[in-house]
Amino acid sequence: MANWENYLESNKSRFLDEMLDFIRIPSISALSEHAGDIQRAGEWVADRLNAAGIEGVRILPTNGPPVVYGEWLHAPDKPTILIYGHFDTQPVDPVDLWSDPPFEPVVRDGRVYARGSSDDKGNMLIPILATEAMLKAEGSLPVNLKFFFEGEEEIGSGHLPATIDSHKELLACNLVVSADGLQWREDQPSLLVGFKGLCALQIDVVGPNVDLHSGIYGGTVQNPIHALVRLLDSMRSPAGDVLVEGFYDDVVPLSAADREQIAAIGHNETEYREQLGVDRLFGEPGYTALERAWVRPTLELNGIWGGFQGEGSKTVIPSEAHAKITCRLVPDQNPNKILEQLSAHIEKYTPPGVKISTTPKAAPSPAYRIPDDHPGNQAAYAVLEEVYGKTPYYTRLGGTLPVCRLFLDKLDVYTVTFAFGLEDENAHAPDEFFRISSFEQGQKAYCKLLERLSEQAGL
Amino acid sequence: MANWENYLESNKSRFLDEMLDFIRIPSISALSEHAGDIQRAGEWVADRLNAAGIEGVRILPTNGPPVVYGEWLHAPDKPTILIYGHFDTQPVDPVDLWSDPPFEPVVRDGRVYARGSSDDKGNMLIPILATEAMLKAEGSLPVNLKFFFEGEEEIGSGHLPATIDSHKELLACNLVVSADGLQWREDQPSLLVGFKGLCALQIDVVGPNVDLHSGIYGGTVQNPIHALVRLLDSMRSPAGDVLVEGFYDDVVPLSAADREQIAAIGHNETEYREQLGVDRLFGEPGYTALERAWVRPTLELNGIWGGFQGEGSKTVIPSEAHAKITCRLVPDQNPNKILEQLSAHIEKYTPPGVKISTTPKAAPSPAYRIPDDHPGNQAAYAVLEEVYGKTPYYTRLGGTLPVCRLFLDKLDVYTVTFAFGLEDENAHAPDEFFRISSFEQGQKAYCKLLERLSEQAGL
Repeated sequence: MANWENYLESNKSRFLDEMLDFIRIPSISALSEHAGDIQRAGEWVADRLNAAGIEGVRILPTNGPPVVYGEWLHAPDKPTILIYGHFDTQPVDPVDLWSDPPFEPVVRDGRVYARGSSDDKGNMLIPILATEAMLKAEGSLPVNLKFFFEGEEEIGSGHLPATIDSHKELLACNLVVSADGLQWREDQPSLLVGFKGLCALQIDVVGPNVDLHSGIYGGTVQNPIHALVRLLDSMRSPAGDVLVEGFYDDVVPLSAADREQIAAIGHNETEYREQLGVDRLFGEPGYTALERAWVRPTLELNGIWGGFQGEGSKTVIPSEAHAKITCRLVPDQNPNKILEQLSAHIEKYTPPGVKISTTPKAAPSPAYRIPDDHPGNQAAYAVLEEVYGKTPYYTRLGGTLPVCRLFLDKLDVYTVTFAFGLEDENAHAPDEFFRISSFEQGQKAYCKLLERLSEQAGL
Repeated sequence: MANWENYLESNKSRFLDEMLDFIRIPSISALSEHAGDIQRAGEWVADRLNAAGIEGVRILPTNGPPVVYGEWLHAPDKPTILIYGHFDTQPVDPVDLWSDPPFEPVVRDGRVYARGSSDDKGNMLIPILATEAMLKAEGSLPVNLKFFFEGEEEIGSGHLPATIDSHKELLACNLVVSADGLQWREDQPSLLVGFKGLCALQIDVVGPNVDLHSGIYGGTVQNPIHALVRLLDSMRSPAGDVLVEGFYDDVVPLSAADREQIAAIGHNETEYREQLGVDRLFGEPGYTALERAWVRPTLELNGIWGGFQGEGSKTVIPSEAHAKITCRLVPDQNPNKILEQLSAHIEKYTPPGVKISTTPKAAPSPAYRIPDDHPGNQAAYAVLEEVYGKTPYYTRLGGTLPVCRLFLDKLDVYTVTFAFGLEDENAHAPDEFFRISSFEQGQKAYCKLLERLSEQAGL
């Protein structure tokens, strides 16, 4: 057993306690009242890097949430790897659907239940702990390492482009390894080779200048909720195609090879459907559910509100109604162009008698694709195969990791995702959890990955 | 000057203080946490009736909120008048749009600002004060009086049918006078001769069994918000017609006489539109705004909610989405039949991949119409003409006073509305207010009405 392996083994319970400490910071990036918690989480990460033996730890100045940087650069002639993760979390509502308070982690059945446990605090802690084990047990690392942890991934990493631009030399590397990502199943590893892009929009509909009594005014003015549902309904066909003009224009058609790679996974739609508790799956016709999730663009309504939401009846015509939309994009869709198409659609389909305005939410981000046989992928593939004893799948994600695209565009390096969350862990939903077995296996896998990258050709 | 008039004059400031006390009780009937406040408001009314010299004051047992009864029956050979009002209020949200806390009345520019000031606490207090003035200053009343105040008008008076059924003898009378209603303008009286009926429904859409990450699951399942907006959009044409099958089947067509009576009011649509701050009016084609508001049935969305409503972006496919609908009905629509038609429509138009359930909200109530020349109307007309110095308009209300219909069906008496709220007083909206001048003028008008009814032929 390697020295680092012994170290990981004997520090297990301390590492778990540290994860729980980290999770207790309610670092929700979408809500400005948590700005102080984002700051605290960044400082927690900086302290933890220092404790691990990482050097030059600092909080990079940005115009947004803090970015935490650290490095260990004493492996001459070896590649330099930049490790990425994020310490912000999703919001917690609807909070009444949680079994326990979201930021008071509960350990149950080998899992840690809490917001941020899987996405991404538990996962981003893994490479820090792996590094500590190697440094403390071996005295050195097999590669040069840089750490780069952000605090606004869940709202689209809007300030990262500028931060990366102004630290290009500091961040220069041969490969990025992302500690944000997924494995396929507890017993099945996977290599993520594609992410969707994203753009997000809030729609605000304003009608009469005050909420009106629907008995006195009903039938005389456009009801903002009616106008909103009409507008939103115009964006999608009954079958599930997006009807925004031009939406599919730049989409790279699905190749036979893509279809084969996705089909090879043997995704069981019945099982998937039953797991979600729906009587049928639904989406753009002509594609499997996995193809739709991974390589077809989508438009989803994430939130809607207006008027009375209490328990009884309130006979009101509200002054306002609102909705939030995100589009998940694929190569070669341009998120800014899609936002323009959405705005044009909204203008064209605005019902009479209301005013509609839109606000982009989250930073627009294009899709990302890494070649299957990239040297970083080769190293990750070998380690996953060794650790799991199984050939990894090549997978995609409908989710967005804007930073992959940023690193490619600005630092000219690809990002390999090497993370240990699973799809069933309720990321972005109530009762998020992270498996402690994944947490521990991930630490070993990271040590092996650094060793493998040290010898990897082509980097 | 009559003795009662002196009494009203010298007790002005006490009466105003009493109105403020009454308003401070947050008796919101739609929210079950305010059940205790409804009870307190009922007790306040009972105490106030006793103080006025009313006899036999009691709280009638019901299966719902309390009903307060009182009587004065010492005018042999004179008609018996039952005075109606309600001491419950609308909810207060959106509470952040109020200039002051809704249940802390503020007196400003001759107005009392608070929830319930106009609808209906200020108005229902008027006949109590008028009665006190006559009893204390004259020693007797010119007619026999019964008082009947309820605490669930704002949620459709669901328990009133049973309460009236079991107290038919107690409530027997020659005419009901409602202290819930409206005048046309500060300087223009009106006689309300028709109310719309009402039925209300909540729609609950359930999709996946938990909120899903829209990146991971987007495009694979029906989004409950998409399903809801599709369903709701199917209920109304772009022009504003209700598309629920059978909705207009039983509607009594608008007669030429009705149109003339409504046109006589000289409703200024431009002024109305500007007051509401919209760039155009909107509704069922072929009718004026006032015709739509008064005599055409409507379907309005009163509330909608689902998914993320916070400030940023949360990329979720929510498990649920919800909406609240009310229909305002006209003669001869049957509210239960309309609810069935709505349910059939919802079943027919439920999009694939979600389950939809509906719950009726508020008690279904048919529309109400009193003959223009009813003896009660004749008396009210004469008093209004005298007090305002102007010929009253004959008006209708899109709003619903279910109790008018109940009294007609169960006690075989018509209800004359005799109340002093105005349409601009934000009933059901933030910053509701009541004019102190209306409060005072109303007290005089009630005294005169009782005198007039004492001599009215045909009752």
